Amino acid sequence: MRPIGQEFSALRWDGACLKILDQTTLPREERWLTLSGAQDTAEAIRRLAVRGAPLIGIAAGYGLAMEIARDAAGLEAGAAELAGARPTAVNLGWAVGRVARAGREGGAAAARAEAEAIHAEEDAASAALMIHGADLLAGRRRILTHCNTGALATGGQGSALGVICELARRSPVEVLVCETRPLLQGARLTTWELERHEIAHALIVDGAAAGLIARGEVDAVIVGCDRVAGNGDVANKVGTYAHALAAAAAGIPFVVAGPTSSIDADLPDGTGIAIEERDADEVRHAGGALLTNPDVPVRNPAFDVTPAALVTALVTERGAAAPVNTASVAALLAPVAV
Amino acid sequence: MRPIGQEFSALRWDGACLKILDQTTLPREERWLTLSGAQDTAEAIRRLAVRGAPLIGIAAGYGLAMEIARDAAGLEAGAAELAGARPTAVNLGWAVGRVARAGREGGAAAARAEAEAIHAEEDAASAALMIHGADLLAGRRRILTHCNTGALATGGQGSALGVICELARRSPVEVLVCETRPLLQGARLTTWELERHEIAHALIVDGAAAGLIARGEVDAVIVGCDRVAGNGDVANKVGTYAHALAAAAAGIPFVVAGPTSSIDADLPDGTGIAIEERDADEVRHAGGALLTNPDVPVRNPAFDVTPAALVTALVTERGAAAPVNTASVAALLAPVAV
Repeated sequence: MRPIGQEFSALRWDGACLKILDQTTLPREERWLTLSGAQDTAEAIRRLAVRGAPLIGIAAGYGLAMEIARDAAGLEAGAAELAGARPTAVNLGWAVGRVARAGREGGAAAARAEAEAIHAEEDAASAALMIHGADLLAGRRRILTHCNTGALATGGQGSALGVICELARRSPVEVLVCETRPLLQGARLTTWELERHEIAHALIVDGAAAGLIARGEVDAVIVGCDRVAGNGDVANKVGTYAHALAAAAAGIPFVVAGPTSSIDADLPDGTGIAIEERDADEVRHAGGALLTNPDVPVRNPAFDVTPAALVTALVTERGAAAPVNTASVAALLAPVAV
Repeated sequence: MRPIGQEFSALRWDGACLKILDQTTLPREERWLTLSGAQDTAEAIRRLAVRGAPLIGIAAGYGLAMEIARDAAGLEAGAAELAGARPTAVNLGWAVGRVARAGREGGAAAARAEAEAIHAEEDAASAALMIHGADLLAGRRRILTHCNTGALATGGQGSALGVICELARRSPVEVLVCETRPLLQGARLTTWELERHEIAHALIVDGAAAGLIARGEVDAVIVGCDRVAGNGDVANKVGTYAHALAAAAAGIPFVVAGPTSSIDADLPDGTGIAIEERDADEVRHAGGALLTNPDVPVRNPAFDVTPAALVTALVTERGAAAPVNTASVAALLAPVAV
C-alpha cells in the first residue's frame, strides 16, 4: 500500500454553524464561508460555492436546520428556497424533505439531528462505495474521469474520485482529468484533490477524452451522478455522455458511482430528468477571461443523460448494479433484510 | 434567397508580399501581419496566426515562393522548415512540395505561379464543395459544427462552414458552434464569421454537443478535416470523434467537408496519421487566463481520428463519397476523363 494524502472535507459543522470551502475560488485561494440559514445556503448552492449532488444535499440539510433553529416559522419558506436552488440533483430535495419533516415533527433539535444523520450517512456511503468500486475496477491502471466527485462534491472522500483514491491505495493509478467546461471543476478541483492525494494525473480538454480512449490509452472511465432514474439512466455533468459513447466503442468499462441518495426511483427513465440551463456568461468566459463576443448567443445545459445501456456498472454504498436496468437498480434500493 | 454578409479572406497576396489576418487575436482585434519568406510564414503557421489545413497550405506555398524570390539558395531549407511547421494536415507538405518542384524547375517566377495556382484551386474547390454539401444536406435546419472551417481556415468561403453558408443562402439555418477547446477556434472565429454572415447561431461547450444531439436538437453535424486517409478515416480537430459517435447514436448525418488536397491516399487508414501534441499551456489557459495550477501535468493532442464507418459522407470539390470507404475515396481522386 502506498501512502495517501491527508483527508479533508469541504464542509465543517460545529453544531450550530456551517463553514464551507468556497469552490469558486479554488485552486487560486482556499476561502471558507460561514453560512447561517436557508437563504445564504441556497445562495451558496446556486452560485456553486458548494456543489456536487451529495454535498449540496448535506449543505442544504444544515441550511434548513440552522433556519429552523433561528426561527421555526421559517421552515416552509426555507425548505422551498433550498429545494429550488438547483433543479437536477435529486439529493437536494431528498435532504431538504428529510430535515423539514423532522423539524415539523420534533422542532429544531430534531431537524439538527436529521441533518447530522444525513451527513454521517453520506460519509459512510462514500467509504463503502469506494471499496465496492475499487473491487470492481481492480487492476485497471489508467482511469479517466469527468468533473469533480471527490471530497469537494460528496460526503467522505468522494464517489468516483473516492473509488480512484481507493484504487490508488491498492496499486498505482494514472488519472486523466477532463477539465469540464464551462466551470472547469476538473481543471480546478479534481487536479487540486489528486495533487493532495499524490495520485499521478494529467489534465485534458473534454474533447480529447474520446480520442484517447479510442487510442487505447484508458482502461476505465468512472464518473459521478447528479440523478439516476429508476432504469439506470444517469444525469451527470455535461460532457459525460460522450465519454460513455467512446468507452462503449472501445470496449472499456464506463462506471457510474454515487450514493443511493442520488437515485430517483420515482422517475422511470432519463427522459423525465430536468436539465438545468445555466447562465450564458459561464460559456462566454473561462477563468474570468472573456473568450468571445460578449453578446454571442449561448446554449448552456449543465447536464446530459447517459442511457443505462452504456453504463457498465452503477456503484453505490450498497454494492454495484451490473448490468444496469430497472430490476438491478430496484434491487439496490430494496430494504435490507435483518 | 436571403442576403449573406460580405465575403472576406484571411489572406491577401499582392504578387510579392503576403498579408494574413492574425487569428490569435480575433475576435478582440483584427490585426494583419506581413510575411516575407519561409521562416516568418512557418512561425505564423506554428503559432496558429494562420491555421486551417487548406489555408496553411496556401500560406506555405506563398511563403516558399517569397523565399525563392528573395534567394533561390533558400529553397530546400525553406521547404523543409515550412513542411515541418505542423505535422497533421496533409495540405502543408503537398503545397510546399508543389511550389518547391516548380521552383527547382523554373525558378522564382514558376514558384510564384504555382503558389498562385494552389490558391486559385483552393478557392475554386471551396466554391464547388459548398454546392455539393448544401445539396447533400438540403432541408437540414439545425446544424452543429466544430472548430473553424470558414474563410479563416480555407480558400474561398470555407469547407464545412462554406457548406453552412450555402445552406443559409437557400433557407434559414441555425448553427450550434462548439467552442473547440483548447484554442477556442469555434468560440473566437466561427461565431465571428457567422455574425458577419448574419447566420443564426449559438455557442456551446464541446461537451454539450452529444447531449443536445441525443435530445433531438440537431439535424446534422458537419466538420472539416486535417487529413483523410485512403479508407476515409478522418483526422480533425480534437473533439470531433465524440460528435461523430453521438451523431451515429442519434441517427443523424455526420458529414466531413474538405478539398481533395486534404486526402492522403498514401495512408491506408487513420492509424498512420501522426497526431500533433501541443504545448501544455494551451490547456492550462483560456483567453489568457490561467485556469488551474500552473504546473499541472497535461496531455494535449490537437486532433483525433474519426473512423470512416461513422462518416455519412465526405464532401469535396469533386462531389461526395457516401458511403465512405477505400473505393469511394479512390473514386473521388481518380483522374477525370475528358
